[in-house]
Amino acid sequence: MTGRPPLLALDWGTSSVRAYLLGTDGAIMDTRAEPWGIMHTPGGDFAAAFTMLTGPWRDRFPDMKAIASGMIGSAQGWREAPYCEAPAGAAELAAALVTVGTGNGPLYLVPGVRRGGKIPNVMRGEETQILGALSLAPDLEKDSMVILPGTHSKWVSVHESRIMDFATYMTGELFAVLRDHSILGRPAKAAQREAGASEIDWPAFERGASTVRDSAEGLSALLFSTRTLVLAGLMEPAHSLDYLSGLLIGEEFRVARPETQRPLTVIGDPALCARYQRAASLFGLPAPRLIENPCATGLWRIATMAGLA
Amino acid sequence: MTGRPPLLALDWGTSSVRAYLLGTDGAIMDTRAEPWGIMHTPGGDFAAAFTMLTGPWRDRFPDMKAIASGMIGSAQGWREAPYCEAPAGAAELAAALVTVGTGNGPLYLVPGVRRGGKIPNVMRGEETQILGALSLAPDLEKDSMVILPGTHSKWVSVHESRIMDFATYMTGELFAVLRDHSILGRPAKAAQREAGASEIDWPAFERGASTVRDSAEGLSALLFSTRTLVLAGLMEPAHSLDYLSGLLIGEEFRVARPETQRPLTVIGDPALCARYQRAASLFGLPAPRLIENPCATGLWRIATMAGLA
Repeated sequence: MTGRPPLLALDWGTSSVRAYLLGTDGAIMDTRAEPWGIMHTPGGDFAAAFTMLTGPWRDRFPDMKAIASGMIGSAQGWREAPYCEAPAGAAELAAALVTVGTGNGPLYLVPGVRRGGKIPNVMRGEETQILGALSLAPDLEKDSMVILPGTHSKWVSVHESRIMDFATYMTGELFAVLRDHSILGRPAKAAQREAGASEIDWPAFERGASTVRDSAEGLSALLFSTRTLVLAGLMEPAHSLDYLSGLLIGEEFRVARPETQRPLTVIGDPALCARYQRAASLFGLPAPRLIENPCATGLWRIATMAGLA
Repeated sequence: MTGRPPLLALDWGTSSVRAYLLGTDGAIMDTRAEPWGIMHTPGGDFAAAFTMLTGPWRDRFPDMKAIASGMIGSAQGWREAPYCEAPAGAAELAAALVTVGTGNGPLYLVPGVRRGGKIPNVMRGEETQILGALSLAPDLEKDSMVILPGTHSKWVSVHESRIMDFATYMTGELFAVLRDHSILGRPAKAAQREAGASEIDWPAFERGASTVRDSAEGLSALLFSTRTLVLAGLMEPAHSLDYLSGLLIGEEFRVARPETQRPLTVIGDPALCARYQRAASLFGLPAPRLIENPCATGLWRIATMAGLA
């Protein structure tokens, strides 16, 4: 709409915050980022951080609306935006926005999504990335599976543009604690191999993923093979962490068993996502499409649905 | 045999060493223990530690033979006793003893056992405990499954008094690193619950074990439920580590799927073994028999087979 001010959109997580100034149709006009995640906000003063981060934009567009997703809406954040129950799409999220006063108008907080049942599961922040990905690749909206790798990897089932169900795998956190604090990290340390270094040894990664694919032993037993293969002289110590990464990512594919008919998407850092693309191939699946950073697009989508943009 | 000197038998592991003076038929005449495991032997001088520990006995019985099992026979120990290939029993282990000079006659080192194949597996020390358990409970010798809980839990298939095959689960180490270094340990820490405290919450443990039994989600995903159940207000933070313990021990039973026909034995600390007995019940198995400390008996058995006692 002509003359309408831009939208201020924030991706405010645990370790950092990124602000976008979104113009017509959600185009990114400007971006700012600070390491002021909710655990690292100076003085714990969210209002002051918000003003420092977005004040110059506010001076230019005093009437702009503001929306944020991520841990800023958690109980540890600025104000809690209670979870939406799955299934949930843009309409449900837009209807459940919670506002917090900033001193410069309200900030709309996007709620996370909860899947109930005997074993509940939650996401916060990912729901916005998923909606952004669906906007960027509309052919995924009908029926697809979206993977968000990371500390706590999410596998999210999407149907008719809504989040239907999801699982969380502790892949990234298991990798880090086993590398840094267990006996499995020692051989690589001794070989002075930087974990997560860009020069991944693909055969070791593939060996780990295919071991999980082909074995009935279960993850707890297979993790130990990271050690025994080195002890037996069957694996280079320097490659052992890539093997471990293959085990953990392979476990996601083994358990999720995605159907080849459903389009598969992976959202995140391209180097990490490349591991998922390789694992998909080992499990006989088409390569997942990579979408790198759909958060601003997702915030725009929810804001539009809520009449804020 | 009348007039034969006792046998000196050592259980020499990573963190401690225990010495037994074994008389007629392997009866324990005397015991000594020191925190001089191979990683903590004063000055790294195994010979000096051996002399300090056993000198007084040696003075009384200058001709006694000496045998040791455990990590003292590893590459990081006094001298490496190469692994015996499974299947292996007392005869195979006795035939593969390796000696090291102590300054007071040879010390016979019991080798560990290796299972080859695509994913090799090893044990060192457990083989001696298993043979001791079989001596203490001869009805297990024909066909049984022996569990040795711990940092790296072993499930060992025994047939005709020989170790046929085995699996290793990283249960104890996973529990410790997740408790101390992951997000899963936080709620219990906040509740100031001492992990491994004697006042285990059995319902929480059973909930974890039965969750693994009844779910197809796989361990990496189920671990995360330790967090989500607390977040959803469905589990007391103080009980979350017992739930985690139930998940990890339940995973052993889920993967091993022991047959109800085979006798099940668990070797180790009674408090830890009680968890395995409870989990066995949840998986519809008879309670495993508990054997607390069969190492001296196992050393006697191997020494007898080798003609040392």
